[in-house]
Amino acid sequence: MRVADLDTPALIVDLDRLEANLDRVAAFARAADLTLRPHTKTHKTPHIAQLQLARGAAGITVAKLGEAEAMAAAGIDDIFIAHQIVGPQKIERLLALAERLKITVGVDSRDVAAPLSTASAQRGIRLPVLIEVDIGLRRCGIPPGQVPDFTREINALPGLNLSGLFTYPGQVYAARTENEVAGIAAYECRILNDLTRQISPLLGVAPRVSGGSTPTAPHYVAGCGLTEIRPGSYVFNDRTQIDRWAAQPTDCALTVLATVVSTPEPGRAVLDAGSKSLAADLAPDSPGHGMLKEDNHAVLVKLNEEHGFLDLSDAVLKPKVGDKVEVIPNHSCVVSNLFDEIVAARGGEVLETWPIVARGKSR
Amino acid sequence: MRVADLDTPALIVDLDRLEANLDRVAAFARAADLTLRPHTKTHKTPHIAQLQLARGAAGITVAKLGEAEAMAAAGIDDIFIAHQIVGPQKIERLLALAERLKITVGVDSRDVAAPLSTASAQRGIRLPVLIEVDIGLRRCGIPPGQVPDFTREINALPGLNLSGLFTYPGQVYAARTENEVAGIAAYECRILNDLTRQISPLLGVAPRVSGGSTPTAPHYVAGCGLTEIRPGSYVFNDRTQIDRWAAQPTDCALTVLATVVSTPEPGRAVLDAGSKSLAADLAPDSPGHGMLKEDNHAVLVKLNEEHGFLDLSDAVLKPKVGDKVEVIPNHSCVVSNLFDEIVAARGGEVLETWPIVARGKSR
Repeated sequence: MRVADLDTPALIVDLDRLEANLDRVAAFARAADLTLRPHTKTHKTPHIAQLQLARGAAGITVAKLGEAEAMAAAGIDDIFIAHQIVGPQKIERLLALAERLKITVGVDSRDVAAPLSTASAQRGIRLPVLIEVDIGLRRCGIPPGQVPDFTREINALPGLNLSGLFTYPGQVYAARTENEVAGIAAYECRILNDLTRQISPLLGVAPRVSGGSTPTAPHYVAGCGLTEIRPGSYVFNDRTQIDRWAAQPTDCALTVLATVVSTPEPGRAVLDAGSKSLAADLAPDSPGHGMLKEDNHAVLVKLNEEHGFLDLSDAVLKPKVGDKVEVIPNHSCVVSNLFDEIVAARGGEVLETWPIVARGKSR
Repeated sequence: MRVADLDTPALIVDLDRLEANLDRVAAFARAADLTLRPHTKTHKTPHIAQLQLARGAAGITVAKLGEAEAMAAAGIDDIFIAHQIVGPQKIERLLALAERLKITVGVDSRDVAAPLSTASAQRGIRLPVLIEVDIGLRRCGIPPGQVPDFTREINALPGLNLSGLFTYPGQVYAARTENEVAGIAAYECRILNDLTRQISPLLGVAPRVSGGSTPTAPHYVAGCGLTEIRPGSYVFNDRTQIDRWAAQPTDCALTVLATVVSTPEPGRAVLDAGSKSLAADLAPDSPGHGMLKEDNHAVLVKLNEEHGFLDLSDAVLKPKVGDKVEVIPNHSCVVSNLFDEIVAARGGEVLETWPIVARGKSR
């Protein structure tokens, strides 16, 4: 079956592009002598996680415990949850996983760490944890200056195996130039290098130091201060990555296949895909909510829930009612969370359909 | 079980508020002698559709065929799909439904109508259709001036039962004052009244004339020119409806229960709910991406996918790590599409859990 024969909206991954993206970032990690632990929140699909592991990833990252459970059920046995796990139900679920596979979690306060410590110790587990450091995003994490004291505090708690540090240079999405992206990567490395020197004597071993993102991934070098990177979006790319100099339009592997349902006047068309298929996220610089793979000058200037407002005034493509088009979204990580399956295609031919097993697993 | 004992993020509906919302808009429709055909895209939940029908709704509206199938499977037998149905797979699915229940669809071009006509006639069906009229949203629909000619054209097609007109005054969400909302409702009525006069002789019967929205719902009166309204958001309300003078904060029935996972500094907290639980939609006027039910001055100023950045600088509430809070979202219709179930609660006590059967049914 051809992609163009599918009913719409449908989520499509172009396997040629996906594989090229996987190879490119795996090569960055190898060249910089970094462990690659891709963030699978982007795809939530065990099949794609396996493709990442097959290309040398040491394990995976997830954002939530529910994603970890879904990935563990698919046989993946080394998972970092890049979040704070809070509350008795979650701690119970976490420790059930920790008893059968290697699962690491973040901590950024005693309030988070103490209940984990108590529960792990009671079950005779030494749970691997990484301290979250805030290097500028102002989300979770402690300031770098507090890391040595907090390292001592966490290291003294039973039931926890403090393995190192992690950070996320998410401020990279506000960078205005490619040089600024490189600067953020360099800043991240410098801070983490300093912290490594300070905490190595406290841990007695070289710490695991995890950071990175898709835009910063090309900017790390061997000995830079990180031991591990966790890029996520690189598998699919999207308009956000194009805007952040991490991809070209031809690197965008994920699209939403949609049908033109109305062409009310020349230069304007309406698609059967809106914010319930494409999400309302904005791109850093690109206007609107997506562009067509077939003609990047055809832009979705507005979304209602089930309608995409397509502006064709600068486009060569002039689709008619019934024509199908592929939309490159602004932010692929949220789009994959709206569909139950991804259709894997090569050269426009449908090869497989992969369930997005961790879709909606935000708990 | 108490709501506060649930694991997070969880989607909660406050039944007292839901029932008050249902009653209020049902009363508007009764007072204006209008058929109420609520748009169920807001909740995608057959259980809530049944509550609407029990309060006098004549049938339901859906945005997509997949939603219609889900609602039909739950026993609902009078459904309007307020969209254009395009493509052979969808037409086949539509006619399978049309053979067993009353299902009406929109048409706004011959390109949409002709294949429906051919397929319906072949199966010996007379499919009810409404012509979509654009009264200012510039989405789908024909301009009012073209309605008489298009009525003649559609009325002549076999297999279709042209029953009237529908429109959607979605430009109401760009209104800057409550007077402007009333003006948009009045404009809608005037246009549809004129069109009714023009097409009644062509149809030989009084047309079904369907319009409306949650913000305009209070502004219709008997004999206004509409015969039916299709408000959707009123069941839950949200910050968008507050901004459009359609609700007070205490009318917001839908919340996302979230846990505070980090309090990096005074005035700032991080929730375990981000854009994958709350969606990135903006409200017309209110800042950020949501506010706490417990303290409306606590605002989610930014969302990452699984993190909510809570600004407490103007708030009295000072939640600690582990505390649970309820977030009133910007746009409830897209939030319900992110969860598999809604927890129905009264006075903070969990009563039932309803599957969101049509979640993700955008096809």
